[in-house]
Amino acid sequence: MSPTMQADVARTNRAFEEVVAARNVAALDGVYTADARILPPGGEMIQGRENIKTFWANAMAGLNVKACRLETVTFELSGDTGYEIGRATLEFAAEGAAPMSAKYVVIWKQEDGAWKWAVDIWNPNA
Amino acid sequence: MSPTMQADVARTNRAFEEVVAARNVAALDGVYTADARILPPGGEMIQGRENIKTFWANAMAGLNVKACRLETVTFELSGDTGYEIGRATLEFAAEGAAPMSAKYVVIWKQEDGAWKWAVDIWNPNA
Repeated sequence: MSPTMQADVARTNRAFEEVVAARNVAALDGVYTADARILPPGGEMIQGRENIKTFWANAMAGLNVKACRLETVTFELSGDTGYEIGRATLEFAAEGAAPMSAKYVVIWKQEDGAWKWAVDIWNPNA
Repeated sequence: MSPTMQADVARTNRAFEEVVAARNVAALDGVYTADARILPPGGEMIQGRENIKTFWANAMAGLNVKACRLETVTFELSGDTGYEIGRATLEFAAEGAAPMSAKYVVIWKQEDGAWKWAVDIWNPNA
């Protein structure tokens, strides 16, 4: 992965963290491709960025999430597709609530010159 | 994806189903690459085929799994890497136990001429 692409990937991942911190799902336009798919634990696969925004709006409110931190473990580029393995830590607004550790795989595609998430699947570590 | 590759992918997925049906983790040699990683729900990432065999031996015994059926939803090849989104159905040996539906993303790589799973992450639908 080139330094430029590494910066692009980091920018998108930081954008997701900001979406969570600000509960601003409109900014998911810069994170997911228009026809992206997410595979959330405990639910069916969801396709399309607008549906994904609804999912995250509900999930962030339902879980009372305060912050999310993403850490890339491996990233490989093959042809026009990237794939990433990472760790996520979720923090909750409720006092005394323990953070949750999760792990994920994201398939990356370029859309309008930006690297975005085309497929996003995760699950909790415990 | 060429018909040849489609057949290769199907063969590997059928091999996994046979591993479960026969509780024969030795045959995972034909399913996972030597340095494959799995990201199981409720646990940490596990790397290396021998460690993956131990995981599945314990999981199949612990859950008393009888059968597993895999269904490819999408498969894309990009460079030397494939990635698949799929659905899995697990059946249990206990009388009256309801089957479990799950979904997964698998990153595919070629090893010794065969297409195998290099990264495998899944989660339950409910």
